Amino acid sequence: MTEKLFTPGPVEIPARVLAALAQRPPHHRSEAFRKLFGDVSVRLARLFGTEGRVVVLAASGSGGMEAAVASFARRGEPVLVGAAGKFGERWTKILAAYGHAPEVVAAEYGSPIDPAAWSAALARVRPGVVFFTHSETSTGTLSDLAALARAAREAGALVVADCVTSLGVHRFRQDEDQVDVAVAGSQKGLMLPPGLAFVGLGPRALERLAAGGAAGPAFYFDLARAAKSAADADTPFTPAVSTILALDESMRMIEELGLENVWRRHASLARAIREGATTAGFRVFSRAPADSVTALVPPDGVDPSAVVKHVKSAHGLVLTGGQDSLKGKIVRVGHMGLAYGPEDAVVVCRALEDAAMTLGATGRSGAAAAVAQRALESPA
Amino acid sequence: MTEKLFTPGPVEIPARVLAALAQRPPHHRSEAFRKLFGDVSVRLARLFGTEGRVVVLAASGSGGMEAAVASFARRGEPVLVGAAGKFGERWTKILAAYGHAPEVVAAEYGSPIDPAAWSAALARVRPGVVFFTHSETSTGTLSDLAALARAAREAGALVVADCVTSLGVHRFRQDEDQVDVAVAGSQKGLMLPPGLAFVGLGPRALERLAAGGAAGPAFYFDLARAAKSAADADTPFTPAVSTILALDESMRMIEELGLENVWRRHASLARAIREGATTAGFRVFSRAPADSVTALVPPDGVDPSAVVKHVKSAHGLVLTGGQDSLKGKIVRVGHMGLAYGPEDAVVVCRALEDAAMTLGATGRSGAAAAVAQRALESPA
Repeated sequence: MTEKLFTPGPVEIPARVLAALAQRPPHHRSEAFRKLFGDVSVRLARLFGTEGRVVVLAASGSGGMEAAVASFARRGEPVLVGAAGKFGERWTKILAAYGHAPEVVAAEYGSPIDPAAWSAALARVRPGVVFFTHSETSTGTLSDLAALARAAREAGALVVADCVTSLGVHRFRQDEDQVDVAVAGSQKGLMLPPGLAFVGLGPRALERLAAGGAAGPAFYFDLARAAKSAADADTPFTPAVSTILALDESMRMIEELGLENVWRRHASLARAIREGATTAGFRVFSRAPADSVTALVPPDGVDPSAVVKHVKSAHGLVLTGGQDSLKGKIVRVGHMGLAYGPEDAVVVCRALEDAAMTLGATGRSGAAAAVAQRALESPA
Repeated sequence: MTEKLFTPGPVEIPARVLAALAQRPPHHRSEAFRKLFGDVSVRLARLFGTEGRVVVLAASGSGGMEAAVASFARRGEPVLVGAAGKFGERWTKILAAYGHAPEVVAAEYGSPIDPAAWSAALARVRPGVVFFTHSETSTGTLSDLAALARAAREAGALVVADCVTSLGVHRFRQDEDQVDVAVAGSQKGLMLPPGLAFVGLGPRALERLAAGGAAGPAFYFDLARAAKSAADADTPFTPAVSTILALDESMRMIEELGLENVWRRHASLARAIREGATTAGFRVFSRAPADSVTALVPPDGVDPSAVVKHVKSAHGLVLTGGQDSLKGKIVRVGHMGLAYGPEDAVVVCRALEDAAMTLGATGRSGAAAAVAQRALESPA
């Protein structure tokens, strides 16, 4: 059976993006590449919504997070982290590796970062820089990025956000939302193979890089150097040229549909999956569900890993379970990027309901797919 | 005109490797990928010649160098660097970024690292770890890796070598050559697009990682963590799956020809280019020329950048000039990987001779291509 990934990244790569990946790549110091990379950079800044600059690193998203820590956390300056799961906690781990001891506002798993607790911590800690997660991939939870960023800015902090699973999925306008540094990765909403990290640097972030003073050390992940090169449509180290060729194509897909429509399409698909899955007896794990990843608690007595196994063997859909403390508790369905269309909500919900029924859940109506279909047709 | 890269990395990617790149990539946590990655890892260790382990990072070669520095240089322990050009100097720059002040044995550009000066420095500095370059890409110079490593081991140091442009080109057997840590990149002898770094960790390096004590900080580039994951055919962060699919194919090409034959083929091609280019009035810049990159000084009165331009426009061959202080002084011809065959020596030498004659060099015989051809046919 042909399988389709419904994983929280990597995501299915559209055929035209794979084809772009297989082009014979130009030399990274050639005029042809410089022209392409300059063009791609301008379009990335538009996608992020910044008047600043987006730098491209050959690394995974975690490398982008480390670059933000190495380039913006200063020795002796308080740091605040907002965490709603495994990826929020990663900020703390990276900061600790660099010798910082951040204060943490931790949300219960499945809840977003609490704006009131965040504001209280800002007043108490008076951080020079804050780090938090927009869409928390481990729990399928969306925090209120604009509110958290606004409060942090008002408290005088530089704002760094992990937008790895929100860019190209959820409404995000970096400058308008008052985010100074936004980190993203390639194998999510940008529907590329893994291997690129993106760091959106707003005007305030660029100023701060020019002024220096980060605790570092930073060499490969030195964003000051990367920003300087980016001004000349260049990179300090050899870029992952083939993946950038594919990026040109995947951004073209986003541009053709229009960014607002891309957000709407994700919202509609995610809502239909939530409604259909609920009908199938699953409970949406998150109290503030993201449109990138849906975390579901199976009906009583149904083992999440059995759901993952059944949905794969009987329907060819690849889902994942929870990580670390959520292992054996949830099923996660990823649906980022334009390889997923509205019809996938129906496909996923039919498979989930079949799994629930096959695995012994009682009192199911058999209407999950129809509910998903109706949700797609009704206005948001 | 179709162009062919003769650049010191990236190199031309064989068609079958590009085709592998365009496969629909499996999820990096799937059994299919784990099996592939386990297999690839075993073959990489065979290619490096180590009983240890080769870790794969989503990064450029410089990221691999930084990983070696972050994971092996200890606070307060003396460090020695051997440098014969720009990439040797990069070790010093990365070490400085991490707060180390290495002693440096610097060779004149075009000369290899001097074993006598190296031994004297080892005795004086008594380093805990040494860093040096095997094939120096900026000058086309090969240093005597085995001699440098042996001396460093005898002096009690851990041995780290940049093998970025020697792996898959020059004879290199990591354990036998007494190299503890060997760094390589994807877009050179492994004929892949840029985006992967490889770090070969010999048995002593693995022991040292297990014992801890590196000055760090390291998170993304923490080789202890990467080695631990590699033992389970896994990576700590999302791997660049598509490039690893292509690696599977490019290593297959090397295995089909046989590693000894791959080295021989590079040696033969490089010798023929040197002999033909000399006949065309060029001077080989290096006193110990590498088989990966040939650096050439054009005939008197002929501008290197004009040679690069002419060879590209009239022959479709992409060469490069020198970097930094060698800008305007040399032409560099790259010939790493199996997209280059013996016939390319003839093609390159014909183009170089045409450039020399067109650009006003006098007394040329017109025999460069024939000399290259004869060199290919004569025993090494």
